[in-house]
Amino acid sequence: MNSLEKLAGMFMKFPGIGPRQARRFVYFLLGENKTFRDELSRALSSLSDSIAQCASCRRFFPRPKTGTFCDICDSPHTDHRTLLIVEKDADFEAIKKTGSYNGRYFILGGNIPILEENPSQKIRARELFDEAQRQATEGTLKEIIIATSANPEGDNTLAYLKKIIEPLATHYSLSLSALGRGLSTGTELEYSDTDTFKHAFENRRG
Amino acid sequence: MNSLEKLAGMFMKFPGIGPRQARRFVYFLLGENKTFRDELSRALSSLSDSIAQCASCRRFFPRPKTGTFCDICDSPHTDHRTLLIVEKDADFEAIKKTGSYNGRYFILGGNIPILEENPSQKIRARELFDEAQRQATEGTLKEIIIATSANPEGDNTLAYLKKIIEPLATHYSLSLSALGRGLSTGTELEYSDTDTFKHAFENRRG
Repeated sequence: MNSLEKLAGMFMKFPGIGPRQARRFVYFLLGENKTFRDELSRALSSLSDSIAQCASCRRFFPRPKTGTFCDICDSPHTDHRTLLIVEKDADFEAIKKTGSYNGRYFILGGNIPILEENPSQKIRARELFDEAQRQATEGTLKEIIIATSANPEGDNTLAYLKKIIEPLATHYSLSLSALGRGLSTGTELEYSDTDTFKHAFENRRG
Repeated sequence: MNSLEKLAGMFMKFPGIGPRQARRFVYFLLGENKTFRDELSRALSSLSDSIAQCASCRRFFPRPKTGTFCDICDSPHTDHRTLLIVEKDADFEAIKKTGSYNGRYFILGGNIPILEENPSQKIRARELFDEAQRQATEGTLKEIIIATSANPEGDNTLAYLKKIIEPLATHYSLSLSALGRGLSTGTELEYSDTDTFKHAFENRRG
């Protein structure tokens, strides 16, 4: 295997990249000048030095000068009474950008596919339990919100998380909820599916 | 700008990659272990050492121990009488794989969009002319085949190349042609577009 094929093989491991696009990436890089490739190479190898994973929420963030917590978990301006659980870093970013939530986060690192035999290994289930318990013991935590996607994997993950967290919530008198369901902004009723309508109908507001 | 954003910015330059997928790539890499990132980093920086660009056909190929030509341009088993012009390396690979052509190639390195003001800068037009002239002067070249895509950019590129090559073809008595047009294998007549039918009708065979 030559280095062109080796590199293409590595790109094929990237999310959503098939063999054709992987090869296209290699040809693109060959077409770029060496400076670009060297810069990319340096950025990759220095990623661990410049990015850290928060010991509390598990999200990746620019490595701090001191400490193991990210700026959100560490900040006094964060509402430490609420903990919002999301599947992945991109979900965290999307919610942060809305500006409508100011509490703590926990990044699961994935979701649980239907019929998954080892659900606890697909997500940071153990870490979530420990972290929620730690925050509850400290007495700050009052509410846990599960914010998984509105699809079968998200629903499955939600069901699994509820089983884990409900005993904890009961023990520490925490309120436990999931994101509301209904019509997304911009949805035309005509094109909404049965499930969406059902949820919108159930969650109707006066 | 932190290194996470910097890396995402570099991935956004990759063909077909938008801001969301670029960030997904970074998170994917952060989730992989350091060994993978280091290996990818090494593969990138060593690409120039292991891959060379053929001085004749301009395709990228594993760097040879000696010489500047690729195995195809250099081989006595290659039919040096024909030169087939393609837009990109992936096109070369696709044709090579069919096994139905055994001549030389030339990789343009792109195509010419409609209304492009500097067409000669979008493709290796000058290099193609020089290379075709060199091969014709040596007396081996007899036929040039232009194999651009069957879309507006490909047609525009074809028209531009014809203008460049026709004087050369006349001067050296080379035959000049483009790939045939008609129904692709598997096409149902019912779903074929007007242009495809027109070409298929014109190129009908007894």
